Amino acid sequence: MISKINCAILGCTGIVGQRFIKLLENHPNFKTTFIIASDSRVGKKYGETVHWLIGGNIPDDIRNLEINRYDLQNFIEKDIRIVFSAMPPDIAGSIEKELADNGISVFSNSRAHRYDEDVPILIPEVNPDHIKIVKEQLKRRKGFIITNANCSTTGFVMALKPLLKYDIKNIYVSTYQALSGAGYPGVSSVDILGNVIPYIPGEEEKIVKETNKILGFYQDKKIRNNNLDIFSSCARVPVRDGHLESVVIEFNKEFSIEEIKKCFNDFKSDSTLHTSPDNPIILCEDPYYPQPGLDVYSGKPERAKGMCVSIGRLKKQGKKLRFFLLVHNTIRGAAGNSILNAEYAIQQGYIKQNGGKKKI
Amino acid sequence: MISKINCAILGCTGIVGQRFIKLLENHPNFKTTFIIASDSRVGKKYGETVHWLIGGNIPDDIRNLEINRYDLQNFIEKDIRIVFSAMPPDIAGSIEKELADNGISVFSNSRAHRYDEDVPILIPEVNPDHIKIVKEQLKRRKGFIITNANCSTTGFVMALKPLLKYDIKNIYVSTYQALSGAGYPGVSSVDILGNVIPYIPGEEEKIVKETNKILGFYQDKKIRNNNLDIFSSCARVPVRDGHLESVVIEFNKEFSIEEIKKCFNDFKSDSTLHTSPDNPIILCEDPYYPQPGLDVYSGKPERAKGMCVSIGRLKKQGKKLRFFLLVHNTIRGAAGNSILNAEYAIQQGYIKQNGGKKKI
Amino acid sequence: MISKINCAILGCTGIVGQRFIKLLENHPNFKTTFIIASDSRVGKKYGETVHWLIGGNIPDDIRNLEINRYDLQNFIEKDIRIVFSAMPPDIAGSIEKELADNGISVFSNSRAHRYDEDVPILIPEVNPDHIKIVKEQLKRRKGFIITNANCSTTGFVMALKPLLKYDIKNIYVSTYQALSGAGYPGVSSVDILGNVIPYIPGEEEKIVKETNKILGFYQDKKIRNNNLDIFSSCARVPVRDGHLESVVIEFNKEFSIEEIKKCFNDFKSDSTLHTSPDNPIILCEDPYYPQPGLDVYSGKPERAKGMCVSIGRLKKQGKKLRFFLLVHNTIRGAAGNSILNAEYAIQQGYIKQNGGKKKI
Amino acid sequence: MISKINCAILGCTGIVGQRFIKLLENHPNFKTTFIIASDSRVGKKYGETVHWLIGGNIPDDIRNLEINRYDLQNFIEKDIRIVFSAMPPDIAGSIEKELADNGISVFSNSRAHRYDEDVPILIPEVNPDHIKIVKEQLKRRKGFIITNANCSTTGFVMALKPLLKYDIKNIYVSTYQALSGAGYPGVSSVDILGNVIPYIPGEEEKIVKETNKILGFYQDKKIRNNNLDIFSSCARVPVRDGHLESVVIEFNKEFSIEEIKKCFNDFKSDSTLHTSPDNPIILCEDPYYPQPGLDVYSGKPERAKGMCVSIGRLKKQGKKLRFFLLVHNTIRGAAGNSILNAEYAIQQGYIKQNGGKKKI
Repeated sequence: MISKINCAILGCTGIVGQRFIKLLENHPNFKTTFIIASDSRVGKKYGETVHWLIGGNIPDDIRNLEINRYDLQNFIEKDIRIVFSAMPPDIAGSIEKELADNGISVFSNSRAHRYDEDVPILIPEVNPDHIKIVKEQLKRRKGFIITNANCSTTGFVMALKPLLKYDIKNIYVSTYQALSGAGYPGVSSVDILGNVIPYIPGEEEKIVKETNKILGFYQDKKIRNNNLDIFSSCARVPVRDGHLESVVIEFNKEFSIEEIKKCFNDFKSDSTLHTSPDNPIILCEDPYYPQPGLDVYSGKPERAKGMCVSIGRLKKQGKKLRFFLLVHNTIRGAAGNSILNAEYAIQQGYIKQNGGKKKI
Repeated sequence: MISKINCAILGCTGIVGQRFIKLLENHPNFKTTFIIASDSRVGKKYGETVHWLIGGNIPDDIRNLEINRYDLQNFIEKDIRIVFSAMPPDIAGSIEKELADNGISVFSNSRAHRYDEDVPILIPEVNPDHIKIVKEQLKRRKGFIITNANCSTTGFVMALKPLLKYDIKNIYVSTYQALSGAGYPGVSSVDILGNVIPYIPGEEEKIVKETNKILGFYQDKKIRNNNLDIFSSCARVPVRDGHLESVVIEFNKEFSIEEIKKCFNDFKSDSTLHTSPDNPIILCEDPYYPQPGLDVYSGKPERAKGMCVSIGRLKKQGKKLRFFLLVHNTIRGAAGNSILNAEYAIQQGYIKQNGGKKKI
Repeated sequence: MISKINCAILGCTGIVGQRFIKLLENHPNFKTTFIIASDSRVGKKYGETVHWLIGGNIPDDIRNLEINRYDLQNFIEKDIRIVFSAMPPDIAGSIEKELADNGISVFSNSRAHRYDEDVPILIPEVNPDHIKIVKEQLKRRKGFIITNANCSTTGFVMALKPLLKYDIKNIYVSTYQALSGAGYPGVSSVDILGNVIPYIPGEEEKIVKETNKILGFYQDKKIRNNNLDIFSSCARVPVRDGHLESVVIEFNKEFSIEEIKKCFNDFKSDSTLHTSPDNPIILCEDPYYPQPGLDVYSGKPERAKGMCVSIGRLKKQGKKLRFFLLVHNTIRGAAGNSILNAEYAIQQGYIKQNGGKKKI
Repeated sequence: MISKINCAILGCTGIVGQRFIKLLENHPNFKTTFIIASDSRVGKKYGETVHWLIGGNIPDDIRNLEINRYDLQNFIEKDIRIVFSAMPPDIAGSIEKELADNGISVFSNSRAHRYDEDVPILIPEVNPDHIKIVKEQLKRRKGFIITNANCSTTGFVMALKPLLKYDIKNIYVSTYQALSGAGYPGVSSVDILGNVIPYIPGEEEKIVKETNKILGFYQDKKIRNNNLDIFSSCARVPVRDGHLESVVIEFNKEFSIEEIKKCFNDFKSDSTLHTSPDNPIILCEDPYYPQPGLDVYSGKPERAKGMCVSIGRLKKQGKKLRFFLLVHNTIRGAAGNSILNAEYAIQQGYIKQNGGKKKI
């Protein structure tokens, strides 16, 4: 029997931090043993200070875990080998760097290092070979950082990937993004109740930039960005969880809806990874779906709930294809994808399952 | 002093019917004197049977008005010269026809006759010359029908009109549509609370078809449809009033945002019409706007509240322009536009202000 | 190994019907083998006609089950021994009676027979001895009906039960009731979005009447109603699931909050019943709870989620006690309680686990 | 013609501050000439810094008004005679005191001085004689402070006042409070969407304490608090504006609903005050009302919209009376009542309409 790897969570009390904690409950390989939050919470027990927002119960072993201040020395003493980061980007940058420099494997939801040349934005089903860029990091430091994409990008890029074999001319996406994507307290209820806010600062730019990096090509030890012509429009809607996106793709040549459906259905996850869904894309035949209120936790098996992208309303008009997609923004779009990245990194040999202090 | 024209409202108890009643309160030219609703309400006083949904008070003179069953003879006896129709399309068709055949001017929110060859879908600021097609109707009958567009189309086409001078290649629109657009009871609260429904049957087709008719050319006593390449995606959001739409236009050549803003600002209403706003388009400089919760009643003067289209978030990417627009779906997108059409028809001499029974 | 009992569900497509189907998935004793809905759905497969509203997946074995019209003969032929009814009360009355007359055990969420003298409104933790009244039914027919209480009553009466040992003078309850309590389509979104509706027809009367029957005394083969002085006020709020209730009890003598907490904590379920929670009441220490959005599925074990009443904000003022309670209106307040009643009826010997056609 | 009195608004950018600005637009006696907000906004033009949340347009003359830091000297130089305060209580205390000490009439929505012995919590229809306590203030300083009640108290006490002639034994109130009552940003959308939060810190205590002061007796130059036995329960609901309250009053003797209705209907405002409604209480006969979404702006004339309390669902059970009331929490419950107080203070001679600098 292989013992579990000790993991730490940076930013453990926010919505994404809570998802990390919940998704790691009973994980076969990882055990959350160390949790970090902002100064005002340090020294308190998790269950006493957290404003638990994601439903279900706080895992019993975490409820009484004490919250710590970030200090590199503690990570080493406590044999933390993997860190999941849900920190705000302004402070995540230097901390994640220090951890990686000192031999720790960092899986980050922060955007701080997403655009670093040798840091991948990884989605195992989409750009598995990008993990190789980690070797470049390991030339300059003892550990590494692997990031996941922005929440609205993740669903979008998972839907695009199976269609890349067709020659794409233009892509248009309009989003209907959930409140939890803004964190907590995030959007004021006075602003959003019965309303839509057609602006999310920085979001439209992230979709374009991250998609082109993720769909870029790993070659000569570099990730060469793609150059897809993407036009993104982002709006916030009064939905708790689940980003819905209206996508139109203009192809350079003809296609059939049946071909597209086949592409989506043939797109597979590596089901040996614990957090992988059986199929990363679920096609909805009923035209009223996908709906964030009902489908956001779709996906099987149980342990991969929220890891799928639901797609429906396929429509063809000339050489244009339209569909609506739905992604759980804090599971597949954040914590869940980072955990999947860690599982994949182990599978690919980037993290030794049995190690111990001497490695670091 | 010119006496007011007696008007009737078909379908007076629905949301659009209520808007007709409220917007005609204190109207300088029109007086609601006859109201029609479905059989179950006939004989009841308006104030007792209506489920008033639009805020403010029921006009005092309407509160005690008795609801009638449709019967042509009554219209003639009561000297009804103008009829505003908010009837369901399945029954509106034959009733509106009979009224028009018998010399009454019908301004309809129903889609029943929108695609009739000699019936215009009229927005005075957009296609004022289309009213001339009414003359073709008058050759075959004593009265006429003028329709307004579907609610989501109205805002869309008002935003497109000032940009038609540019050579448009493609148009993409994704909507965020309000609940009142589905009427009452319309969408179940169980379905939409905290949710988005990415499907509104028939809506996407209407936008394309109606836009191309409205932006068509009146020539040789015919309306020749335009042929714009429009891709529409429609979704329902938990907002009470106000359709928000994300629009991307791909032009065939370069443009500047300043030029576009000038086009929108130069677009004018005929301010001599009572229900006309000063400017049909309001540009929002703050990137967080327009928002349905705050801007849906924008517009001056007071009597034209809800008659403007608010536009914001202009973004240029290559030859593509993006903006978000907001339109009040039951005022400019329905009852308000029909009343404006009636005012315009009078101004253009299609309805005699002083008439009386003998005309009919 | 004991084979499962064949069960039918009347009204299988509504929200409560869906809860029955989902809660019976993988039930150790019951198997849904026959489903009934209104005529328009007869002959269709469940998965094709249902508008699934409760999240999660439709159980695989139910998805392809064909929907039937009610016909007593079918129940006998298919060896249906237990029927769960989620039918509208106007048609439930005669159907449930016919089934019970013919030897079937009916567990009903309908109010049609709640006030019949020999039909109990049963909550196993609250009035377990009331099941004995079933024997009176069995004198006049071959089967029986056991009802569950109205959704808002169920939570209320579960909170009152442990406090009955104190001498109660007055009870006041104001409810904040969820949308799913009104069924589907139920409340129009136009009415309730961003609103509260302070009226639910019949609800206030049901709380008083049902509470006094449930808290009545089984004596001399009769249920003698209690006579508690209850003042109920009911309102609908824009919440999907979970009725919150503000309760004030005026006692005739002094008490302490600690005593009250002990009463709640000492209140127990029979944990040998499959759908029983460990504790029927969960006390919330944090003053911001219980909240329908977060706590409505509280309760352990997993199979009893939604079967608990959460109670918080205990406050004492003189001889008055105030608390807020939360109950899942379609699980404990409807389908879940009916299933628990069936489990309890088996435990108490009212239904033979091995039987077969000849019993009926 | 009497010139208008120069007024200042403290805390002009919050929701209540915005209400002050909007309600004072075109006021016949008051003119907003000086506006104060927190340091981060000082020096900015109102229209550029405010996040306008209350609908309608920012008054043109205020849009370009510059925001100032609080400094007593400025008030004197600018001849500010009346100050409306919407400041947070922690800083309002000392500023309001300094202004009053220096001869300015302060009308405050803050709770900082509500419980001062010689400061009234004034609602002109309810406790008009309490204004006399201002004379005690004027013995110790040159100006005075008059406060309005907490938003949920205001509606409650206006409903109680006409019933005081009956001997009241107990009062129970459960509230359904709107989001704007928590200010901006106030409640996180993640917390309240589709939810109810059964706790508003300090609110329950305020209702009891303030009601007993307002309904106290002015005697021997003192306000002697009433001693009504009130039990209050407060909850936040996802409604933008308008506090709904479920009230039960137990009287010591019998009454009839007709008597109660007469009490409510006989309750009058002084219609010579500009912001007074014709009748402070509006009775709703339809059992589904009052509803915050529809009735919150009820009241005539136009200038007194939001100044009425709507009451419906009267029910009698023994000696107990129940009704639901609705009050606009930021108009009658805050800014509107303060403006009414200022109008009343002028009428009663506490502020000289023509004065000028020398008075101060």
